[in-house]
Amino acid sequence: MLSRIDHVGIACRDLDAKIAFYESTFGLTVASIEVNEAQGVREAMLQVGNDAAGSSYVQLLEPLGPDTPVGRFLERRGEGMHHVGYAVADITAALTSIGAVGVRLIDARPRHGSMGASIAFLHPADVGGVLTELVQPAGR
Amino acid sequence: MLSRIDHVGIACRDLDAKIAFYESTFGLTVASIEVNEAQGVREAMLQVGNDAAGSSYVQLLEPLGPDTPVGRFLERRGEGMHHVGYAVADITAALTSIGAVGVRLIDARPRHGSMGASIAFLHPADVGGVLTELVQPAGR
Repeated sequence: MLSRIDHVGIACRDLDAKIAFYESTFGLTVASIEVNEAQGVREAMLQVGNDAAGSSYVQLLEPLGPDTPVGRFLERRGEGMHHVGYAVADITAALTSIGAVGVRLIDARPRHGSMGASIAFLHPADVGGVLTELVQPAGR
Repeated sequence: MLSRIDHVGIACRDLDAKIAFYESTFGLTVASIEVNEAQGVREAMLQVGNDAAGSSYVQLLEPLGPDTPVGRFLERRGEGMHHVGYAVADITAALTSIGAVGVRLIDARPRHGSMGASIAFLHPADVGGVLTELVQPAGR
């Protein structure tokens, strides 16, 4: 069902500084920078490697304010890993299958994610404390 | 420098239960189960996708006891994402380059990781709160 680790989502306080750090330290390059008002974040996707089967990304997330999911995460836990996103070919089918085994879906229906993807989150309490995202990349 | 997200490391209390969960919920398959005494963990690598360029894994980590790095992590933060590992072609060159920009190395020299890989950790305080691992897979 999962075809790839699509991205690791990392919460940070200063997106531009963190982009510069990942570029200079690890040689990553920015694939996109977007504001997602619905999720309350400004975010960057930095490509890791260059894979014909589909790329993976470091996703850096800066909250638009303190009263957002990532803002509350930073207040509670500080900067660091926030979630993991896995690529799937058919997100609707994946949500049906995963919901059927009793994992609670934060998003029962897909919504808009980075770079035109359809995404949905699963409840971390049902995935061993891991906020887990499914990602159906755009155009597939 | 980073060619792939090699794995996401996830701390858990019951490795066998968590393996069964990832198999049944997400259809992942176990590539290896190992005890790493030096790191104080029993761990499983579950393959995500099937990529010619090299696979990615969910790495499940169960501590061998409370007074181990993963044991203390569980006590402090509970189950969840513990670290991210990126594949590199030459881990010694990567450590030299990363150390030169001022990131502290937990492991100045590579040590043994899962599935015969050479690995080294970078200090999370210098990588925005993310415990970051470099992985040079075996045989490359």
